[in-house]
Amino acid sequence: MTSSHFAEEAPVRRVALFGGTHGNELSGVFLVKHWQQEGEPEIRRPGLQTKPFMANPRAVEKCCRYIDCDLNRVFEKENLGKPLAENTPYEVQRAQEINSIFGPKGSRDAYDLIFDLHNTTANMGSTLILESSRDDFTIQMCSYIKIFPPQGALAPEVCPVFLIEHPHLKYATTRSVAKHPVGVEVGPQPHGVLRADILEKMRKIVRHGLDFIRMFNAGQAFPPCTIEAYKIVEKVDYPRGKNNEITALIHPDLQDQDWRPLHPGDPIFLTMEGEAILYEGETTVYPAFVNEAAYYEKQQAFVKTVKEALSARGIRVSQN
Amino acid sequence: MTSSHFAEEAPVRRVALFGGTHGNELSGVFLVKHWQQEGEPEIRRPGLQTKPFMANPRAVEKCCRYIDCDLNRVFEKENLGKPLAENTPYEVQRAQEINSIFGPKGSRDAYDLIFDLHNTTANMGSTLILESSRDDFTIQMCSYIKIFPPQGALAPEVCPVFLIEHPHLKYATTRSVAKHPVGVEVGPQPHGVLRADILEKMRKIVRHGLDFIRMFNAGQAFPPCTIEAYKIVEKVDYPRGKNNEITALIHPDLQDQDWRPLHPGDPIFLTMEGEAILYEGETTVYPAFVNEAAYYEKQQAFVKTVKEALSARGIRVSQN
Repeated sequence: MTSSHFAEEAPVRRVALFGGTHGNELSGVFLVKHWQQEGEPEIRRPGLQTKPFMANPRAVEKCCRYIDCDLNRVFEKENLGKPLAENTPYEVQRAQEINSIFGPKGSRDAYDLIFDLHNTTANMGSTLILESSRDDFTIQMCSYIKIFPPQGALAPEVCPVFLIEHPHLKYATTRSVAKHPVGVEVGPQPHGVLRADILEKMRKIVRHGLDFIRMFNAGQAFPPCTIEAYKIVEKVDYPRGKNNEITALIHPDLQDQDWRPLHPGDPIFLTMEGEAILYEGETTVYPAFVNEAAYYEKQQAFVKTVKEALSARGIRVSQN
Repeated sequence: MTSSHFAEEAPVRRVALFGGTHGNELSGVFLVKHWQQEGEPEIRRPGLQTKPFMANPRAVEKCCRYIDCDLNRVFEKENLGKPLAENTPYEVQRAQEINSIFGPKGSRDAYDLIFDLHNTTANMGSTLILESSRDDFTIQMCSYIKIFPPQGALAPEVCPVFLIEHPHLKYATTRSVAKHPVGVEVGPQPHGVLRADILEKMRKIVRHGLDFIRMFNAGQAFPPCTIEAYKIVEKVDYPRGKNNEITALIHPDLQDQDWRPLHPGDPIFLTMEGEAILYEGETTVYPAFVNEAAYYEKQQAFVKTVKEALSARGIRVSQN
């Protein structure tokens, strides 16, 4: 392949590592505290400025998801430009602070890349969350993490890639202030708990991601690649009765089966009387965020995804 | 055996089923709501008054453990008799309400038995928690649940019995207002999550417990029995550094190993540098509540227990 096949991209010099966007997702909280105290040897790379950052310190202090509203849903332009008032939710104020430090969102001055570290109670393994099917750089980075060294950073486990690009299901994430937003979602882990196995998986993803950035900045060219991704297509709520109370649970056959095929006719819920409620769709889908604690209030039992090939052009660093 | 070997005990007529003593432990919350709405066929037994009850409705509404302080720690006589003031914690007020409905604690008028339904993030299975080694009735009930039908209510799983009788580690539980307090602690389940498998285990324990009470009231005599129990002997905190921050995690070899023997020299914690911290005790113990989310703030990584034979006299209902 000649050099003309490679899209030239600006170097990625400023990288932030966000923990505590949700204050009770403890792997990221713990890693950020560790990196801030220990002077960051693990996350230092030549030619790269890495900044560990606690996104929602008040929620971290209380070990809860948020104080007034979900920080990971308020990074719309409208919120970021809103004049502050006394009744402005804490997380909107915090979003503006984050936007002024790491943004402004959508501008040339914004940080190059943010790894936003999350946990889930769902059995999603080590998932990488992307926001755009046209962000060659992050797709290339996911490809690297998935396949290098030999079987991938988390071998023998895979790293599923979850694409939240969607006309109305995409949400305005904290990491979206950066040019390249990358969500890291590792589970299953109860909120408010630190598991050593989950922590180690998160660290590996971050280390390999930073290695990729270092190599890219140093001039290594990455040829075109295609990875398998799961693209969000629909949210599914629990069956509910009066007062909006849940009337059935995730079926044992679906529990812990994130990323496994769900076929038409498969059970998805179980009532208190032991009756199975079946999936009535017409095509096979791949569920994710199955039984995530934080999504009960968001009326979401799981999301349906479809498998999609996600391609990136070859990239190399621009020499300017 | 002649009838003279049986201690006569008063019939157990009034039984309460408490859910939501901790508002984010959802199996009990969900069961109590179900039983309240559906008119309780599952928990009805002849000769028995069963009352499903939501212990901390404000915490349930917010899906958090408690509002001001842990309801399951405030049932000391001092709190129960304290005059209410504006700054009295919500849970102390609620404890007084509960004491007036189901108590007074320690009096003849108190409810006969309370099942208090809890979940834990620890891998403790279906644990029964007892408060006294001299409560023949609850020991007999545990024995029944453990061994009947053939291999026990939860076969092939066992029902560990956890005895919290201890000069200073015992705490003043919500259920302690009843003459016979029984804690039901089922895990692992993240707080804020409902798992069908965990719910079913909890239901089975309650159904078998109520069956036992019905048989006892109906005149069945239960011969002397001995069960294996785990008795609390010590709490162990996480290693902590400045600002009281945790500096090591539960070691992967200990994670999820509740009730398994922990021998001197076994690893218990893992530092961020990958160094194992070993158990330095001189005797084998049996850990429980390993990595329970709610106990980080209580400075408790796990509790040590020792195995003990717990014996009960033969019992039968008094005919007066």
